[in-house]
Amino acid sequence: MLPWSADLAGRLEEHVVVSELLRGNPLGDPHERPVLVYLPPGYDDEPLRPYPVVYVIQGFTGNVAMWHNRSPWRQPFPENADALFARGDAPPAIVVYVDAWTRYGGSQFVDSPGTGRYHSYLCDEIVPWVDARYRTRRDPASRAIMGKSSGGFGAMITPMLRPDLFGVLATHAGDSLYEYCYIPEFPAAVRHLRRYGGDIWRWWEDFTSRVPFTKAEDATLINLFGVAACFSAHADGRVDLPFDPETGVIRPAVWQRWLDWDPVRMVPAHADALRGLRGIWVDAGTRDEYHLDLGASAFCAALREIGISDEIVHFELFDAGHGGIDYRYPISLAWLCHRMHANQAAG
Amino acid sequence: MLPWSADLAGRLEEHVVVSELLRGNPLGDPHERPVLVYLPPGYDDEPLRPYPVVYVIQGFTGNVAMWHNRSPWRQPFPENADALFARGDAPPAIVVYVDAWTRYGGSQFVDSPGTGRYHSYLCDEIVPWVDARYRTRRDPASRAIMGKSSGGFGAMITPMLRPDLFGVLATHAGDSLYEYCYIPEFPAAVRHLRRYGGDIWRWWEDFTSRVPFTKAEDATLINLFGVAACFSAHADGRVDLPFDPETGVIRPAVWQRWLDWDPVRMVPAHADALRGLRGIWVDAGTRDEYHLDLGASAFCAALREIGISDEIVHFELFDAGHGGIDYRYPISLAWLCHRMHANQAAG
Amino acid sequence: MLPWSADLAGRLEEHVVVSELLRGNPLGDPHERPVLVYLPPGYDDEPLRPYPVVYVIQGFTGNVAMWHNRSPWRQPFPENADALFARGDAPPAIVVYVDAWTRYGGSQFVDSPGTGRYHSYLCDEIVPWVDARYRTRRDPASRAIMGKSSGGFGAMITPMLRPDLFGVLATHAGDSLYEYCYIPEFPAAVRHLRRYGGDIWRWWEDFTSRVPFTKAEDATLINLFGVAACFSAHADGRVDLPFDPETGVIRPAVWQRWLDWDPVRMVPAHADALRGLRGIWVDAGTRDEYHLDLGASAFCAALREIGISDEIVHFELFDAGHGGIDYRYPISLAWLCHRMHANQAAG
Amino acid sequence: MLPWSADLAGRLEEHVVVSELLRGNPLGDPHERPVLVYLPPGYDDEPLRPYPVVYVIQGFTGNVAMWHNRSPWRQPFPENADALFARGDAPPAIVVYVDAWTRYGGSQFVDSPGTGRYHSYLCDEIVPWVDARYRTRRDPASRAIMGKSSGGFGAMITPMLRPDLFGVLATHAGDSLYEYCYIPEFPAAVRHLRRYGGDIWRWWEDFTSRVPFTKAEDATLINLFGVAACFSAHADGRVDLPFDPETGVIRPAVWQRWLDWDPVRMVPAHADALRGLRGIWVDAGTRDEYHLDLGASAFCAALREIGISDEIVHFELFDAGHGGIDYRYPISLAWLCHRMHANQAAG
Repeated sequence: MLPWSADLAGRLEEHVVVSELLRGNPLGDPHERPVLVYLPPGYDDEPLRPYPVVYVIQGFTGNVAMWHNRSPWRQPFPENADALFARGDAPPAIVVYVDAWTRYGGSQFVDSPGTGRYHSYLCDEIVPWVDARYRTRRDPASRAIMGKSSGGFGAMITPMLRPDLFGVLATHAGDSLYEYCYIPEFPAAVRHLRRYGGDIWRWWEDFTSRVPFTKAEDATLINLFGVAACFSAHADGRVDLPFDPETGVIRPAVWQRWLDWDPVRMVPAHADALRGLRGIWVDAGTRDEYHLDLGASAFCAALREIGISDEIVHFELFDAGHGGIDYRYPISLAWLCHRMHANQAAG
Repeated sequence: MLPWSADLAGRLEEHVVVSELLRGNPLGDPHERPVLVYLPPGYDDEPLRPYPVVYVIQGFTGNVAMWHNRSPWRQPFPENADALFARGDAPPAIVVYVDAWTRYGGSQFVDSPGTGRYHSYLCDEIVPWVDARYRTRRDPASRAIMGKSSGGFGAMITPMLRPDLFGVLATHAGDSLYEYCYIPEFPAAVRHLRRYGGDIWRWWEDFTSRVPFTKAEDATLINLFGVAACFSAHADGRVDLPFDPETGVIRPAVWQRWLDWDPVRMVPAHADALRGLRGIWVDAGTRDEYHLDLGASAFCAALREIGISDEIVHFELFDAGHGGIDYRYPISLAWLCHRMHANQAAG
Repeated sequence: MLPWSADLAGRLEEHVVVSELLRGNPLGDPHERPVLVYLPPGYDDEPLRPYPVVYVIQGFTGNVAMWHNRSPWRQPFPENADALFARGDAPPAIVVYVDAWTRYGGSQFVDSPGTGRYHSYLCDEIVPWVDARYRTRRDPASRAIMGKSSGGFGAMITPMLRPDLFGVLATHAGDSLYEYCYIPEFPAAVRHLRRYGGDIWRWWEDFTSRVPFTKAEDATLINLFGVAACFSAHADGRVDLPFDPETGVIRPAVWQRWLDWDPVRMVPAHADALRGLRGIWVDAGTRDEYHLDLGASAFCAALREIGISDEIVHFELFDAGHGGIDYRYPISLAWLCHRMHANQAAG
Repeated sequence: MLPWSADLAGRLEEHVVVSELLRGNPLGDPHERPVLVYLPPGYDDEPLRPYPVVYVIQGFTGNVAMWHNRSPWRQPFPENADALFARGDAPPAIVVYVDAWTRYGGSQFVDSPGTGRYHSYLCDEIVPWVDARYRTRRDPASRAIMGKSSGGFGAMITPMLRPDLFGVLATHAGDSLYEYCYIPEFPAAVRHLRRYGGDIWRWWEDFTSRVPFTKAEDATLINLFGVAACFSAHADGRVDLPFDPETGVIRPAVWQRWLDWDPVRMVPAHADALRGLRGIWVDAGTRDEYHLDLGASAFCAALREIGISDEIVHFELFDAGHGGIDYRYPISLAWLCHRMHANQAAG
C-alpha cells in the first residue's frame, strides 16, 4: 500500500440517497446524502450469495467524505477494512458508511426537532435502500452497527430502539455516563459564555461569521450546542442548555432530557432488546478525555445487571486517549464479522 | 518589612485549647489544639474597649502553624492583617486563627463520625474560650468568619447553622456547586483506584507507609477520601465513596449526603439564618481549578433568590486560579471589619 | 459548498511524475510521485495566455493526497484556493501541489544521503515538468513557493538556493531559529530514549512493527529522527543525532550541520539571492508550540539586516498555535498572486 | 511528631550575621543576615568533640526563614534532619542554614555586580563565623555543602571554586546543562515581554508595584531576570539578557557568560579541585520541568571524563518533577555525614 492511495481488493461505491425524512429538516441541511457502500472481494463472483452488513457511523463533526482522509503512517479505515477481508482475516461483509452530519456538527443519530430525523433516516431509509440494492442478509443477527464517540453512542442506542434491525454492535469510546463525559464541560462553557453575555446564540453567530475553530471556546461550545440541539430542543427548534449560563446551575428538567439518552441509564428500559443482541463490542482508551472508559465499564456493568452473558460482550480498555483510535475499527470489524458468521451458522 | 520576619504593631498570642469535644475523636488526632489570637494595635491601651472578632479557618490540608509559612515576595497573612490595622485601613478587630486539621487532611468544619466534632468544637469550645479570655463583642453582628477553599465552605455553612454566633462572613473560592467542584475529580479517582483494586483503603495504607505526595494519585485521592470522611461516614467511622470505584457510577444515596452539604443547595433551608446576616463577602478566581467561580456565582444567585439585598453581599471574580490567592484575605478582612464597625454603629 | 465535496470553478489535474533523481533513493520510497496541478478558471478560454505558478509544499508527515482531507466547517485548501480565483479575489495562477513525503516523515526539501534528493527533484524535475506541460510564466518573479511548518522552511530555503527559479515566497510557521524549535524537543527525546537503551533505531524498529502513534514518544522521536535524516546523515545513510542520547549533551559538529540549515542563520550567506526576491510573506501564530513566531520575527529581522525593504516583506503574527492554521493559506496565496501580477506589470 | 510542631533532640540556634561583604550591595538588600545553626544531640555532652559541618543553601526565591514552612503530612527538613541524628541513622554533624536571598529572588551563590558578593560572603564570612563559634572540624573532607535547584547549583560550583573549604557536596536537581534548563524558558519570556515593549525593566517595575505572582509572566520573568543579574550584569549593575527581547535571537557574548557558569561546562577547568573531593551526591527527578535530570547525568558524565571514580559519586534519578522533593534532603544528608565520617576515619 502506498501512503497516498491503495488499490482495493473489493470495491467502494459512492451513492447519493434522497431522504424524504431529512427533506425540510430544521437546519436546512441537504436531504440528499452521500453513502459509501463497500463490497468485499468475491461479491461479484457468487451472484446468489447474501452478505451480512455492517453500518458504520461517525463521531461528532464527522461527515462521510472524511473516511477518505489520510493520516501519516496509517491507512484510512475503508482501506484497512478491505485489507482485512482480502487477507481472509474476517468473513466477508458489506460495509455501509452512513452520513449524519448537520451544520451543528452531528445528529447523535436521534430524531430531534433541533436537527432532524436522523434516527429514522438511518433505520427507515438507509437500511431499506441498501437492502433493496445489494445482496444483504436481512435478519438482525446479520446486521451490525459500529462507530466511535458519538458514533459509538449511536451504535449503542440504535439496536436498543430497533432490535428488529440491528443484532450486533461495536462501540468505541461511545458517549455514556453523562456525569463524566458532559458535566466537566459545562463549567468551561459557562466561562466561555461570559464573553457572549451568557448567550450561546451570540457565540454561534460569531462562529459562523468567521473562520471556525480559531477561538479557544469553539470546540467546547460547538459540542455543547450540537448535543443540546439533539437532546433538548423544543418542538420549534429552539435549544435549551442543561444549565443556567450565568451560574452553571444544572436545570434538572433539561438535564433529565439528556440523561434519558445516556446509554448506561437506558439499559434497564431496553433490557429485552439488549438481551436479544448477538454480539456487543465495547472498548475505550484508559485516558479518554471524556472519561468514556468509565462509560464503557458502566455500560458493561449495566448489561451484566440485566443478565447478558459475558460470551455476548467483548469489553476492553486500552492505553489511549479519545483521539487517534481509528486503528481499533478493523479489530472490532473483524470481531463483528466473525460473530455474524457464527450467528448465521447457529441461526 | 523584611522577607524573613516582621515586627507586628499588634501582637499574636499562641495558645493551646484542650477540647473535650475532640477528645477521643475517631482518628486519634490530638484534642489539644493550637489557636492563634491576634490583638490589634491599641488593644492594651483601652482596657475597657470590646472588639469585634474575626475567626479565620483554613483550607483542606491546612493547619494553624502554616499561617507562619513564608512565600517569596509576599508576607504571611497575619503580618498583612497587622499592617492593615497598623495603617488604619480597617477598624480594629481581634483575629482568631483556628485549627481544624485532621490526619485525613481536614474536617470541613462539620461534625462527622468519620473525623470528629469540629463544627461543635469551633462553635461551642473555641468561641466561648475566646470570649472568656479576651475583650470581645459577642453579638453576631460583631463576629465574623472567613476562609478559603474548604475554609470558605466552613465560612458559608457555619453562619447558616449558627446564626446566633456568626453574623458576617467571607468566603474565598469556597467549596460549592458540587457537580463542578467534585464530580470532575471522580473519574480521575476511579482511574487511580484501578491500581488499588478499587479499594481506597489500600491506597491510604500505601500513602501512610511511604513519603506522601510522591505518587500522581495522592492529591486526588486524599481530597476525595478526606471529604468522604466528613460527608459520608458511617456511625462506626467507615467511609462511603459517592461512586462505584470500578465503574464510577454515582451512588445516589451517598452522593445525596454530599449534596446536603452543598452551600448552594443549603440556602433555601437556611433562608432565615442567612437573611439575618449583616455582611457576606464572596469571591473566587475566574480560572479556579475547582470551578468555584461558578460556585460563588451560584451561591450569590441563591442568596438573591431568598431576598438578600445586594447591599449585604459583596461578589467579585478576579483573574486567578485556586492557588496563590492569599493576597485576597486582607481585602476581605478590611471589608468585614468595616461592616462590623458599621453594624455596631447601626445596632 | 457542501461539507463533503465542492465543484471547482477551475480544475485539478492529478499526475504521476517519474523522478530519475528519486529513483533508488536510500529509503526505498517510490520514485513515481503524485503531483496535483490546479488550473484556474479561464485557463482554457485563453489558449495563449501564460500564467504565474505557485508551488505548494507540505509540512512534516504530509503527503500530497492529504490536500483532499476534509475538516469540520472548513474546506480543503485546493477548494478555498479555487474559490479565491473564482471570486476574482486574486489574479489567476496555476497552483502545483508537490509531494516530498518519505517513510521517515519528510524530506525538508533538501538533498540528503539520509532520505534522497528532494531539493533537486523539486527544482530540476518538477518545475521543468510543469513548465513543459502547462502555459507557465518562467521568470522567477512569476514563480512562487509556499508552505507551512517544514513546508514553510522549504519555502524559505529553496529561493535562497535557487533564486533563478523562485522569486516570491510565503512561509507559515516555517522551521527556523533552531534553538527554540528544536532544542526544547531534545530533552523530551532523551527521556523517551531511556526506554530504548538510548538507541533511536530500536525505537524506529518498534515504531514500524506496530500501530504507529500509539506511544507517547512517537511524535517527538519521528520528528527528531526525520529531521536528523535530512540534516545530519552520513554518506552511507546512517543518521547522527545532534546530542548524546544518554546525557543530552549537544554534539557541536552534528548540531552545526543542523544550524547550517537554519533559515535565520542562512540569510547572510544568501543575501544576494534574497535581495533579488520580489515578495516574501512571513507569518506564524503567537502561541506556536515550536516558537516559530520567534523564528518568523528573527527571519524578518535578518532580512532587514541585509537591506531588504519592508515593502517586499509582509510580516504578521496572529493568535494561534502551530495547528489548524490552514485558513492562512488562501490569504498568503492571494498576496503572492497579487505580487506576481504586480511584478509582471513592473517587469 | 505533631503536624504543627516538633521537639528537637538537638537544637536550632538562630543568629544574625553582620556581613561586611554584603554591606552596600547593589540591590540595597540587608547586610545583616539570619543564619540557623543546628547542633546535633550530644553536642553539649562532649565539650571537646569537634563536628563536621553541612552547609545547606536554598533554591531561587528561597530565604532562610522558609525552612520553618510546614507542608501537609511532611515535616520541615530541619526536623527531619534532627530525627535522622536522633535515630542514629547518620553520624552527628552541625548543619548550617545559610541565607542568600536577594530582592531579585536569589544570588546563585556567585559574586556579581548585579546582586552582591554572595559567594565570598558564604566562603569568607559565614564559614569563618561558624568555625569561630562552634566546635567544627575544619578540613574540607569534613565540610559539606548541599542544596536543591539553584542551591544544588551552588553546591556544585562552590567546591569547584573553593576546594580548600568544601570537600563533599550534594546537589538535588541543580541548575546545569543550560541549553535545557534555560533555553526553553527564553521563548516564553520573549512572548511575555511583548506586553512590556520588550523591556524587562518595565515588567520589573510593574511586578514590584502590585501583588507579585498574580500575572502569568511573573514566574518566568523573575527567574530570567534574577539569573541574568547573577550571570550577566555590568559593573554598574545593569543587566543584559542573553537574547534579543524582540526576536529571541541569542546574544552569543552574553550567553557565553551564562555558559561559563554551567557546572557541566565548568568541570574541565576545575578538574583538579573536583578530583580532590571526597563525596559527590547528584540526583534529580526524571520529570524535572527544567530537565535537570539531564543536567545531573551530564555532570556525572563530565566527572567520569576527568577520571573521578564511581566510588566518589552517588548518582540517582527518581520519579519526580522539580517540586516537592524536599524528602530527598535527609537521604543525601545521611550520605554526606557517613562520607565525612569515613573521610575522617581514613584521613
